[in-house]
Amino acid sequence: MTETVISSATREVVIGFDRPFVMIGERINPTGRPSLADEMRRGDFARVEADAVAQTAAGAQLLDVNAGIPLADEPALLAQAVKLVQSVTDAPLSIDSSIVEALEAGIAVYDGKPLINSVTGEDEVLERVLPLVARHGAAVVAISNDESGISEDPDVRFEVARKIVNRAADHGIDASDVVVDPLVMPIGAMGTAGQQVLHLVRRLRSELKVNTTCGASNVSFGLPARQMITGTFLSMAIGAGLTSAIMNPLHPEVKNAVLAADVLAGNDRDCAAWISQHRDPEKAGSRRRGGRRRSV
Amino acid sequence: MTETVISSATREVVIGFDRPFVMIGERINPTGRPSLADEMRRGDFARVEADAVAQTAAGAQLLDVNAGIPLADEPALLAQAVKLVQSVTDAPLSIDSSIVEALEAGIAVYDGKPLINSVTGEDEVLERVLPLVARHGAAVVAISNDESGISEDPDVRFEVARKIVNRAADHGIDASDVVVDPLVMPIGAMGTAGQQVLHLVRRLRSELKVNTTCGASNVSFGLPARQMITGTFLSMAIGAGLTSAIMNPLHPEVKNAVLAADVLAGNDRDCAAWISQHRDPEKAGSRRRGGRRRSV
Repeated sequence: MTETVISSATREVVIGFDRPFVMIGERINPTGRPSLADEMRRGDFARVEADAVAQTAAGAQLLDVNAGIPLADEPALLAQAVKLVQSVTDAPLSIDSSIVEALEAGIAVYDGKPLINSVTGEDEVLERVLPLVARHGAAVVAISNDESGISEDPDVRFEVARKIVNRAADHGIDASDVVVDPLVMPIGAMGTAGQQVLHLVRRLRSELKVNTTCGASNVSFGLPARQMITGTFLSMAIGAGLTSAIMNPLHPEVKNAVLAADVLAGNDRDCAAWISQHRDPEKAGSRRRGGRRRSV
Repeated sequence: MTETVISSATREVVIGFDRPFVMIGERINPTGRPSLADEMRRGDFARVEADAVAQTAAGAQLLDVNAGIPLADEPALLAQAVKLVQSVTDAPLSIDSSIVEALEAGIAVYDGKPLINSVTGEDEVLERVLPLVARHGAAVVAISNDESGISEDPDVRFEVARKIVNRAADHGIDASDVVVDPLVMPIGAMGTAGQQVLHLVRRLRSELKVNTTCGASNVSFGLPARQMITGTFLSMAIGAGLTSAIMNPLHPEVKNAVLAADVLAGNDRDCAAWISQHRDPEKAGSRRRGGRRRSV
C-alpha cells in the first residue's frame, strides 16, 4: 500500500496502490512544440496558462512543467512557468528538467511538495539530484537507465531502479517518495516494448513496492490512430500495476482508457467517476455527436 | 506455447500464446435478442446468416453459434444454424449450448474440429460432455464453476479449472484442447470482478498453461458507454495473458482495443494489422467521419 503524497499550497494528491490512477498532464513542455518554445522564449506564457487550465479541467490531478528550450535560460523560464501555473491552478506540479540548476530554480519558487522529474541511475546525476530532493522533502521520478544506457532487458532496468531506491534511502528519502519510470519505448520501433514495461511494472510493484509513472505517449510514436494505442497501453499497464503516467488527458481515447481501467481495477468505487463522466451525453465525449475534442 | 487448433472444412484457426488474439463472434445467440429468438423459432435464419457474414467481415476468426430458445427444439435449431453458418462462411465454429443433446446435434452436422462450448466442473456435466469431446476429437471451453456455484475467490476457480483439465486428460483430451473460461462477472455489480479475472488468467497461463476465453460483454453490463469498458477489459486481460474471447467485433471500441492490445503484446508483427486497419481513413472506424458503425 505504498502512497506518494504530492502537494501544492492548497491541495494534496496521492499516487498509490489501490487508488484511482493519477494523470499527470504532459502538455506544458516545449519539446516538439516549436510554437510553444518560441512563445516561452519571448516570455509569452499564454499557452502555458491555457494548457494548465485545460488539462486540470480534463481531469489531470498533477501537471508536469518543462521549459527545455535550446539556447534559452532554462532555469529562469522554468521558474517563471512554475510560478504562473501555480497562480492559475491548485494542481500540484511535477518540475521537469534534465538540468539540475533548472530543477533548483523551479523548486525555489514552488509552494508545496513537488514531484521532481527526474533522476537517473547515473552516479553523477544521483549525487546532484538526490540531495536536492532530500533538502526540499520532495518526491522524485526515478528513470531506470544508467551510464550504460537503456537496457532492453527489463530485469536490468529493475536493478537500476533498485539502485536508485537504495541510494535515495542513503539520502534519507523513503521509497514511497521514489516514483519509478520503467521507460516506455515506441512499440512501432521495438515490438517487445510493451511486454518489457508490463513485466517491469509488475516487478516494481510486487518486489520493490514503489509507485510508478511513465511518459505514455511515447509508446505510440509514428503509428496511425496513435491515441488508441496510447490508451490501450495505459489500460494494460494499469492492469499490471502502474499507478500514474505523464499523458495527455485532452485526448478522449487516452482519458477514457484510464477511467475505464480504474473501473476494472476496482479503483473507481461503485463506478462513480465513470458513471458521472458518461451518464450525461454532453460529457460522454464527442463520439455520438460526430465532433472531436482537440488539445489546445 | 500452448496451441489450440479449431477448424472448419477449409480453414484452421489457432488459439495460442504469443499469437494474435482470437475474436469469437458472439452475435449468433438469441439470449437477450427476442426478435432473433422469434425468427429462429419460426425457421427464419436470415439474421443468423447476416450476423455470420458481418462478424467475419469485421475480423472474427471463429463464430459462436447458440440456439438457446425457451420451449423450442434446441437440438434441431442448433443443427440448422450450424449448417447454415457453415454454408456462408469458412470460419470454424464454437458450438454453444448448455444442453448436451443440442451439442450432439450441432457436432453431428459440423464439418471440421469444433470448439464445444461448454463444460463446467460439475461431475454430471463432465461425464456427459467430455466423452462427446473425446469421441469427436474436438476442443472444449471449460467454465470454472462447479456444483457449489461460482466462487468469488479466483484461486477456488483455478482449482475447478485444474479439475476439468485433469478429468479431460482421463478421457484422453489434451490440455491444449481445453480452453478455460475464468468467468467474467459484471463489474458494476462486483467491483473485484476485473481483478479476479486478471489474477486467474495469469495463473491459468503460467501454471496450468492453458488457453483462455471468456464472454467479454458481460463485464460492462448495466454501465454507460459500455463498449469502452468491454474494450478496456479485453486489453487488460490480453496483457495478463488471455488468448481469445467471445465478443462483438462489430463494436469499433471493442475491436480496436483488441487490435491495439495485440500490437502492445508484441503479437502484431511490425504492427502490420494495426497499420492496415488504420492507415486508410475509410477503414479507420467512424470516429473521424462522425458516424458510428452499427451491429446488424
